[in-house]
Amino acid sequence: MNEATLSRLKASLRDVRDFPKPGVIFKDITPILADGELFHLALDAFLEVIGSERPDKIVGIDARGFIFGAALADRLGVGFVPVRKKGKLPWKTRGAAYDLEYGQGHAEIHADAIIPGERVVVVDDLLATGGTAEATLRLVRELGGEVLCLIVLVELAFLHGRERLGKGTRVVGILTE
Amino acid sequence: MNEATLSRLKASLRDVRDFPKPGVIFKDITPILADGELFHLALDAFLEVIGSERPDKIVGIDARGFIFGAALADRLGVGFVPVRKKGKLPWKTRGAAYDLEYGQGHAEIHADAIIPGERVVVVDDLLATGGTAEATLRLVRELGGEVLCLIVLVELAFLHGRERLGKGTRVVGILTE
Repeated sequence: MNEATLSRLKASLRDVRDFPKPGVIFKDITPILADGELFHLALDAFLEVIGSERPDKIVGIDARGFIFGAALADRLGVGFVPVRKKGKLPWKTRGAAYDLEYGQGHAEIHADAIIPGERVVVVDDLLATGGTAEATLRLVRELGGEVLCLIVLVELAFLHGRERLGKGTRVVGILTE
Repeated sequence: MNEATLSRLKASLRDVRDFPKPGVIFKDITPILADGELFHLALDAFLEVIGSERPDKIVGIDARGFIFGAALADRLGVGFVPVRKKGKLPWKTRGAAYDLEYGQGHAEIHADAIIPGERVVVVDDLLATGGTAEATLRLVRELGGEVLCLIVLVELAFLHGRERLGKGTRVVGILTE
């Protein structure tokens, strides 16, 4: 993807100060979503990362990961799998805990969501400290899936989330802050 | 959409008993999402309802509405707007309360998400009692949007949700239970 387009996407992120708590600058992606052309370009960028490696499933992380993940699954003609916060998926689940700044988070996937051997691309809007992403990769692998890559629209590189994801995992942030 | 396809989609819904609470039969859509062909067909059905009335925006309701809404926005080349539960959207919001069985729910939209006069299609996975849907329609109209229709994959007709949405609103359930 050319630099001009990436710069345009980056310029369309909205910094929201003190959300969700004082001292944090939140990267609001909704201006990109609300503009049909920008949303299209952002999805083009995800597809470019995937390249010719056609996955069997796209896994999207609750809830903004659903937005990019579902559209990508549709473009590729493959299935979409949601990873959700605890208690949101109705059927049999497999769960993974991860550490948060204070306390623990818990991600879940349906136990039949991935067929062993399936090649999976994991998608989210943002990579921060990497807790949810790490738990998601673990769940996909526990179900027998092969993780081709994790792609996020925005990587907050100063939080070093990718270091938590292990050296064997391809991690791509389309925009880096 | 032909009856055979609709029957196939309907047969792929998974009934989960006693979720999220005893006595409720939950309609699990994840088997449709996980199958690339079925997901594609479901989105085709949404598009068929929209027909030639090209909207300016697709509004998706948190969180499963994001899955269908975002893919539809991408197919149509228009913007996507998330309506979320209280406290999830980072910027200036407009909110609407709605009655639940016990207590109140609260939906929010970004105050700049709809430009007055824009034509909007609202999308969700399921219409039950219609509380969130009614609040979402109200929010879109308060921002000056024109609601072309509300489309859901599954309408639980026995809960009479569409009666809550007013006679002036086109409501389409692709599958009815």
